[in-house]
Amino acid sequence: MLFRFLPKNFNFFDLFEKQAQYAVDAADCFRELVSQNVLDDASLLKMHNIEHQGDDVAHTILDSLNKTFITPFDREDIHALAKELDDITDMLYTIVNRMKVYKVAGSNKNLIEFSSVISESVRAVSRAVKGLRDPKRSKDVSEACVEVNRLENLGDTMRDDVLAELFETEKDPVAIIKLKEIYQDAETVLDICEDVAHVVQSILVKQA
Amino acid sequence: MLFRFLPKNFNFFDLFEKQAQYAVDAADCFRELVSQNVLDDASLLKMHNIEHQGDDVAHTILDSLNKTFITPFDREDIHALAKELDDITDMLYTIVNRMKVYKVAGSNKNLIEFSSVISESVRAVSRAVKGLRDPKRSKDVSEACVEVNRLENLGDTMRDDVLAELFETEKDPVAIIKLKEIYQDAETVLDICEDVAHVVQSILVKQA
Amino acid sequence: MLFRFLPKNFNFFDLFEKQAQYAVDAADCFRELVSQNVLDDASLLKMHNIEHQGDDVAHTILDSLNKTFITPFDREDIHALAKELDDITDMLYTIVNRMKVYKVAGSNKNLIEFSSVISESVRAVSRAVKGLRDPKRSKDVSEACVEVNRLENLGDTMRDDVLAELFETEKDPVAIIKLKEIYQDAETVLDICEDVAHVVQSILVKQA
Repeated sequence: MLFRFLPKNFNFFDLFEKQAQYAVDAADCFRELVSQNVLDDASLLKMHNIEHQGDDVAHTILDSLNKTFITPFDREDIHALAKELDDITDMLYTIVNRMKVYKVAGSNKNLIEFSSVISESVRAVSRAVKGLRDPKRSKDVSEACVEVNRLENLGDTMRDDVLAELFETEKDPVAIIKLKEIYQDAETVLDICEDVAHVVQSILVKQA
Repeated sequence: MLFRFLPKNFNFFDLFEKQAQYAVDAADCFRELVSQNVLDDASLLKMHNIEHQGDDVAHTILDSLNKTFITPFDREDIHALAKELDDITDMLYTIVNRMKVYKVAGSNKNLIEFSSVISESVRAVSRAVKGLRDPKRSKDVSEACVEVNRLENLGDTMRDDVLAELFETEKDPVAIIKLKEIYQDAETVLDICEDVAHVVQSILVKQA
Repeated sequence: MLFRFLPKNFNFFDLFEKQAQYAVDAADCFRELVSQNVLDDASLLKMHNIEHQGDDVAHTILDSLNKTFITPFDREDIHALAKELDDITDMLYTIVNRMKVYKVAGSNKNLIEFSSVISESVRAVSRAVKGLRDPKRSKDVSEACVEVNRLENLGDTMRDDVLAELFETEKDPVAIIKLKEIYQDAETVLDICEDVAHVVQSILVKQA
């Protein structure tokens, strides 16, 4: 195997920040979509484009990782970080696509609440990722990770409450099938944010 | 990156045994809960505490792994073992929490049967993990792993029978939605035990 | 840890090709089964045997990997390739088993369509895996991977269309529960094929 050096201006940190920004954009787009009365085509297309661009950045990171010898931190952490950041955007796209296929639309108060917690969590993820390039900001990075963990716990409680309510009040089994899956997916976004925080924390521990 | 040595009394084997013990405790607690007519708060709290303590041990293992150079076996196997052992306890907590949210309670003969197979499997996992520290006990470890595999196959058959029966006899689609997920989760516990056995077997092969 | 050399005639490529062939056999068997009006026992047994033989090859690869020092490409890629190829066959077996448990049979036009896309994708996977042993065929390997990616996208659209139609036309919630899971599983086979293609592409990049 021949290892090569990447171009001088190549920077893993820049690409991770780009990925985090796409996750923030996807979270904002998700928030817009669940607040509307209809799933308009323009917002759906916007989400699709964000997901697509996020994919491209993830592929660039993984290809570059395979071609280089010198990396700013452990190869497995770079791989995991690129993968998990991409999963946030993918999952948000999956939910929106599912809403379209299942014809679940109309502003849904539970999804609006989820979207606002997701938006906070993805922003904390973005702060954590941005701080990685500067060892002096490790305290900020840690705090952002703690915030992501807190929001994941909050999301668990929200999902439990929302599902309990769904089973109590919704009498149509088909509506239960659809909404149960979408609510569980929304909580999964927060799980993936927590996975990112775990990778970031493991990078910090190794650098300490 | 600076690698450091862990305190002299630090021992990965002790922590893995602790994790395995939490999995055994969680399996016992699960068995109690599914045999009762109501999900009492005391048992739910007990399960929650077990899960929490298990989490703490898993984090200690992963943090220590990131900080040390000297490990008793391959780093990726330590990582996988800590992760999978934690997943057993997590999954048992998830099932119990789901039963509470879905208001599924009352002693359920299928869950009682699952809980007894899970209890056997988790005890075999614990024997396998305990044997790891002594190369002379590799035969016992292997036998415990074979037992875990046997119980996973048994669990597959149980899940198939139980789901076939559910679709035959239950007429309420909402009850099907709830119980189907809980039965599939119960079988997943046995899958995770098998994943632990695979990691243990891979450690044995490398030591042979 | 003692590393040993494998027997001279041991060849990872031979085993990967065997795994790919089992995946092709499983896809063919799946196609047969979904075209029939009943799930006959002979075909079910055939699928079960393919899955079992595939498992054996996967175990041989992973055990050999743990025992040897010299590998034709990165250890983690060998591990991932063996795992993902095995997952294709497993998933096809899972679907057929689920159809039996749920008593879903009778030639289903949607599953017939899925089975034909799966058949194409698994054959492209097999071409990619076969090309790996000869660096001069890297262009063919790349083309096969692109084809797998194309078929995964096609599968996403198929699944969305089929689920939208299911929710539109099927009035029985229990039938929706069963078919929804089976259609989603069918698409998952194509996702796993894409995962194999990603591993293969990452091997190519490192060899370039």
